[in-house]
Amino acid sequence: MRRYRGYIFDMDGVLYRGSEPVPGAAETIERLKKRGRRVVFVSNNSTLSREDYAEKIQEMGLPITEEELIPATYATARHVRERYPGERVYVVGALGLIKELLRAGVRVTQHPSKASVLVTGSDPEISYQKLSYATSLLLRGCPWVSTNADKLYPSERGILPGTGAVVGALQYITGREPLIIGKPSKHIMEQALRVLGVPREECLMVGDIIESDVLAGRSVGVDTALVLTGVTRREDIEASEVKPDYVIESIAELEV
Amino acid sequence: MRRYRGYIFDMDGVLYRGSEPVPGAAETIERLKKRGRRVVFVSNNSTLSREDYAEKIQEMGLPITEEELIPATYATARHVRERYPGERVYVVGALGLIKELLRAGVRVTQHPSKASVLVTGSDPEISYQKLSYATSLLLRGCPWVSTNADKLYPSERGILPGTGAVVGALQYITGREPLIIGKPSKHIMEQALRVLGVPREECLMVGDIIESDVLAGRSVGVDTALVLTGVTRREDIEASEVKPDYVIESIAELEV
Repeated sequence: MRRYRGYIFDMDGVLYRGSEPVPGAAETIERLKKRGRRVVFVSNNSTLSREDYAEKIQEMGLPITEEELIPATYATARHVRERYPGERVYVVGALGLIKELLRAGVRVTQHPSKASVLVTGSDPEISYQKLSYATSLLLRGCPWVSTNADKLYPSERGILPGTGAVVGALQYITGREPLIIGKPSKHIMEQALRVLGVPREECLMVGDIIESDVLAGRSVGVDTALVLTGVTRREDIEASEVKPDYVIESIAELEV
Repeated sequence: MRRYRGYIFDMDGVLYRGSEPVPGAAETIERLKKRGRRVVFVSNNSTLSREDYAEKIQEMGLPITEEELIPATYATARHVRERYPGERVYVVGALGLIKELLRAGVRVTQHPSKASVLVTGSDPEISYQKLSYATSLLLRGCPWVSTNADKLYPSERGILPGTGAVVGALQYITGREPLIIGKPSKHIMEQALRVLGVPREECLMVGDIIESDVLAGRSVGVDTALVLTGVTRREDIEASEVKPDYVIESIAELEV
């Protein structure tokens, strides 16, 4: 395995599982930092703000600062601020997404008639009214940005609907499609590369899901490594048409 | 236009618009009944029970009895009772749908782990928890029956999400597809034909939407007439690949 100057890490399944850190993860990150490698951490989490997420990560003892973290909430807020400056935004999403939008200086409104951009994420308080409001924006032709479109995610309470529940509902009834910020989209990856400040030929994306992490790496032309501490097994890789550049048992095996 | 022995009418856009009856609708229905024609009324409404719906129709002065009405709520309840006798059902849907299921003797449960069939309809109280519960049934492989899959519907408060919001969300995240009872599915039409008790060659379907009513008529091999009192204009028919057997200005022009 080549050494790289910049590393982009997926989080759940790579650094931790549930609330348990992967053995050796903290040590590997510290070693990388000591050797002067640049590191950044991306996640499709669409319900936690960057600050809330950093707190959760630090509680697990992982040596990661808020500035090194790019959850989809944060990446979406940055995209909306840059692409739609001054416009009012209607949100179907969790408090963490609203916090990031506000922190980025985006004008968030509860009145759909005043909004000109729709932003969606996973919403634990999804309602018929919110879907109706979002529909009215989409039928008016307003741009639609989504943190991600993940279908399902495993949790301590079983497999739960992801942001895909909101995206699928609105897509089906309006025929519109969102611009997706999270993996496997290139948008969150471009933001990660900007934070790294390293040419993409010298960057490695490390993740645990082929359709999300490996494709995200491909979308911006960086090399990819798949770890087996998450949802993917060796036989899944054999069955897949998309192959990562490297397969390693865990982040602890990363040569730094 | 041929005379028929049995008539299946769509309701909204044919008999009334919003809460206003179409001029001549009541008289046409009375004339048909006087001449001994059989009539039945089908609707994709997934929030009102048959009884609630009959009340609404009768308030508009339309001479239609509860027994002549087949809303999707009622048709769905009948289908579930016949196809899944004794099984417990989890519902994402409005009170009107639950009422019909209970009235049909179907066992409805709030506990997804006890249910073996999922029934969906438009749900004004859709929630993340309901979607999660429905997802758990679908991931277990339980059968899924939906009143309909209509995308949008016009209302006094503007264009609102139909049952398609629930169907689209669950379909997107689970990859499953429901059995659809309402138009353009043949299921509601077969129930209508059973109520009519007339051979299908002698029946006419009258509606205002090509993709819903005309296709529904086709699905069971009955002749179709399109009225122009609803959402369809003459130029829409010219642009459509599917053509009804007859086009008439309104139900009042029906030769009986």
